[in-house]
Amino acid sequence: MANNKQVLFASRPKGWVSEDNFRLVESPLPAPAEGQALVRNHWLSLDPYMRGRMDDAKSYAKGAELGQPMVGGTVGEVLESRSPKFKPGDWVVGALGWQEYGVGEAAALSKIDTAAAPASYYLGILGMPGVTAWMGLLDIAQPKEGETVIVSAASGAVGSVVGQLAKIRGCRAVGIAGGQAKCDYVTGELGFDACVDHRAGHLHANLKAAAPGGIDVCFENVGGEIFDTVLRLMNPFSRITICGLVSDYNATTPYALKNLRSILVNRIRMQGFIVSDRMELWPGAIGELAGWLKAGRLKYRESVATGLENAPGAFIGMLKGQNFGKQLVKLD
Amino acid sequence: MANNKQVLFASRPKGWVSEDNFRLVESPLPAPAEGQALVRNHWLSLDPYMRGRMDDAKSYAKGAELGQPMVGGTVGEVLESRSPKFKPGDWVVGALGWQEYGVGEAAALSKIDTAAAPASYYLGILGMPGVTAWMGLLDIAQPKEGETVIVSAASGAVGSVVGQLAKIRGCRAVGIAGGQAKCDYVTGELGFDACVDHRAGHLHANLKAAAPGGIDVCFENVGGEIFDTVLRLMNPFSRITICGLVSDYNATTPYALKNLRSILVNRIRMQGFIVSDRMELWPGAIGELAGWLKAGRLKYRESVATGLENAPGAFIGMLKGQNFGKQLVKLD
Repeated sequence: MANNKQVLFASRPKGWVSEDNFRLVESPLPAPAEGQALVRNHWLSLDPYMRGRMDDAKSYAKGAELGQPMVGGTVGEVLESRSPKFKPGDWVVGALGWQEYGVGEAAALSKIDTAAAPASYYLGILGMPGVTAWMGLLDIAQPKEGETVIVSAASGAVGSVVGQLAKIRGCRAVGIAGGQAKCDYVTGELGFDACVDHRAGHLHANLKAAAPGGIDVCFENVGGEIFDTVLRLMNPFSRITICGLVSDYNATTPYALKNLRSILVNRIRMQGFIVSDRMELWPGAIGELAGWLKAGRLKYRESVATGLENAPGAFIGMLKGQNFGKQLVKLD
Repeated sequence: MANNKQVLFASRPKGWVSEDNFRLVESPLPAPAEGQALVRNHWLSLDPYMRGRMDDAKSYAKGAELGQPMVGGTVGEVLESRSPKFKPGDWVVGALGWQEYGVGEAAALSKIDTAAAPASYYLGILGMPGVTAWMGLLDIAQPKEGETVIVSAASGAVGSVVGQLAKIRGCRAVGIAGGQAKCDYVTGELGFDACVDHRAGHLHANLKAAAPGGIDVCFENVGGEIFDTVLRLMNPFSRITICGLVSDYNATTPYALKNLRSILVNRIRMQGFIVSDRMELWPGAIGELAGWLKAGRLKYRESVATGLENAPGAFIGMLKGQNFGKQLVKLD
């Protein structure tokens, strides 16, 4: 039988992640205990939140453990099941980490319908990133028709869905992305009303031109100076969803925010959230997203690296904004 | 008939306010038009929000106008009424500004009951500061029994009420104040469970000791480094009410906040608010506050300067934290 290729979390990064923080190893296939299933992972999801798990600091989830496989969402096929919930050949989504094979508790795996959508979609638009966009925008920020919604990392797995949901709700959708190619994709293919390239300079003036009536909802994925500039353009009684602060994740000292006063002056409601806090909202969210996807109202793009050994490089590239759409690793 | 003494807003401050930003003048008594009343002001309220009105920047209310009497809340006696709403001898609360006499629209004046409480209380615990505490804590932050509530400027007009309301709700009340005398007052007389002197150093360690279970609700009046330190101690799913950022009001560059990430990690809901946005809540709030005051469950202290000419000095002192309790000017 095959060995199991794994990428271990080898050392904590200081500042930027490097390939040295990971180690590729081979080990024997694990065997499922009672109530568990052995899964051949076909897709690994790479997401910004993983950077936080590599720190020793307090965070919302247990950190990655040194010497263990790096944490991550996976989709794969059940090879052996010791739970009545699954049989061999079933496809499941779970969090079995950066490895080709994994053993998981049946309760922590969910069966997916690969006829309804490609398996990889359950790590993206029909998975954690899609539900994140849905929950942060529709449940927390609650934009009203005619309002202006801004989202950073607009071409990414979460941001691309946020802007399209804003359009479905009858809002003006404004994206922020790095580079003209991403901006063209955001407006041309995803249907946002405008997109500002934060690498092009004149950020404040360009945001103002893109949101001439000010900003009613900010869905924040990036933080740092971009968010600080957005704060200057928020309208009275506007809302900010803090979904991610990826610009800080690799900073050795965090960005210092200058425009907090806007929260007071504009009576802003700002809310941090983590999608896994409210699992009860997932089925409804996935159902709505699948419906809009089928109806052609949601577009979706993936950025695929091939082979587990390329996961560290793809992860680092994603943190630097080099991916284009949802970043995945194909494991077969 | 007497002349009207007025303190005019003479020039915009850069950084700290100085007495040069005001000018004392005398002018003839104004005459009320139809629908107006002439009032002899007996009490002038001095409040931190006034500093914001002196800036040219966008804020939540119209700024003070150069060459006009400085804006401010007042309590006084009606001398002449051209509205059926009032008769001479009625006592009213309004915002007639820094002057001994003022003419106001009847719709913008409210009769007060000087038998139920001293007239000056309608500028404090039964007025804007009291309702601010009530709204920001009970309506916005909604502390639950057993939670820890922290409030900065804890001996001030708003903060002193916040902590006492927290106690009434069954919470642990922790204050932050400048100096041991204020802290002794906050714990000894107002009944807070603890108070941290931010001038004593070791702010983080002292806050941690005062809130050993972390902080569930922060009612923020000050901002700056104190707030940044509090952010490090917030619990998951905690709430922050941004009521004021007085440490920034006189700063030429605002404090840059380092711990924004706590909002995300702890899924904090942060909300800025202005008490005048929701006038419909005032009568109920004042009714509750008056009931607790009468029952001896709320304590209240005033800091009184005498004579309009001393208003600028008292205002500057208040911005520097030299007052002790609600700052007023007695005008007769």
